[in-house]
Amino acid sequence: MSPAADSVGRAVVLLSGGLDSSTALAWARAQGFDCYALTVAYGQRHQSELAAAARVAHALSAHEHRVMQVDLAGIGGSALTDWSLPLPDQPSSGIPVSYVPARNTLLLALALAWAEVLEARNLVVGVNAIDYSGYPDCRPEFIRSFEQLARLATKAGVEGACFRVHAPLISMSKAQIIRNGIGLGVDYAMTVSCYQADAAGQACGQCDSCRLRRQGFEAAGITDPTRYQ
Amino acid sequence: MSPAADSVGRAVVLLSGGLDSSTALAWARAQGFDCYALTVAYGQRHQSELAAAARVAHALSAHEHRVMQVDLAGIGGSALTDWSLPLPDQPSSGIPVSYVPARNTLLLALALAWAEVLEARNLVVGVNAIDYSGYPDCRPEFIRSFEQLARLATKAGVEGACFRVHAPLISMSKAQIIRNGIGLGVDYAMTVSCYQADAAGQACGQCDSCRLRRQGFEAAGITDPTRYQ
Repeated sequence: MSPAADSVGRAVVLLSGGLDSSTALAWARAQGFDCYALTVAYGQRHQSELAAAARVAHALSAHEHRVMQVDLAGIGGSALTDWSLPLPDQPSSGIPVSYVPARNTLLLALALAWAEVLEARNLVVGVNAIDYSGYPDCRPEFIRSFEQLARLATKAGVEGACFRVHAPLISMSKAQIIRNGIGLGVDYAMTVSCYQADAAGQACGQCDSCRLRRQGFEAAGITDPTRYQ
Repeated sequence: MSPAADSVGRAVVLLSGGLDSSTALAWARAQGFDCYALTVAYGQRHQSELAAAARVAHALSAHEHRVMQVDLAGIGGSALTDWSLPLPDQPSSGIPVSYVPARNTLLLALALAWAEVLEARNLVVGVNAIDYSGYPDCRPEFIRSFEQLARLATKAGVEGACFRVHAPLISMSKAQIIRNGIGLGVDYAMTVSCYQADAAGQACGQCDSCRLRRQGFEAAGITDPTRYQ
């Protein structure tokens, strides 16, 4: 995770405004990428994440920050987009109800579309296979498969371009992510991870995401700057 | 393309309201699939396609028809979503300017998300590799690659489900598509292919899409029912 002196090209960075994606953006900046942050508003509960994403993109000097609207709530199937499903306040086994069908496929497809327009060849995504082992689309084999698809799916790919999907956090624990992010200058007080944060971005402290985040700060030995309700 | 007597399960069918996707829906119905039609409004010029999609879904007895909004216009890069780029009125060589970056990746990702919610294992898309040979994401290798991705990307895939992406028109000429569609009961007067149709769905007769469609009817020896401006 050492900073590079010069720009190594453009990267589209998926930025939700949470802890992981903010750290991924800081990583991309440290690599020397000229960063284009993309936030996808897919009908999730936590609208305050969108405001967090804008703050983080600015603080970490993203070249540009765009918010794209996709109405995933219309298809339901997830506690994150379907308000009729309760969110768990206990650790879940297996794939959590907060799983959003095909979410990372969709997010990467949007990032790929923007990358092709920008002539960027790098996508950066803050997926994490350890703390979120329940999500199928956070695994290395999914990331590699998407890279293959990107080559076949695009005009740039047909013309010989090779898209790279960087998932720098994929094998880190939450504590490692936090320690790395602190070293890269991330101000975690800006980020919102909670699935049901209030309008001011204050966290519930109860949901799966809050629990993992709190445990991460404890394990890292770093004071948790999260603003709880 | 012979009809099956019994339902062979649910299929999500991508339906733009144009000639190809309407034929693909008729094919899926004839196969015995319980069809869920999905229209994605991605900021394209031809809003009248959306009205056509609703008419076709109803006429071909889709179980349900949903329209999802995705703001692809925000990223530009295509004459279909970026109004500042002129549409060609001459046949183009290579990849046409009407190419929408990563479009089919995005459309299939949305179809996959809905399929997972519906517990459908079949996606149907009216891509065609012959008349649209300029589009990289209309090729068989792209379709196969997406099937692999779908298995890795989803909760259902992890649990053993195998998603199938059907592209029944992929190796047909436009004339073959039209002859097949007529046999399957498609009323092409309902469909809109034109890139710049007017509000009533009347075609310009000049754009690439109009030209291919008109040539298709001529080659099929079938009277063109398209309503021109």
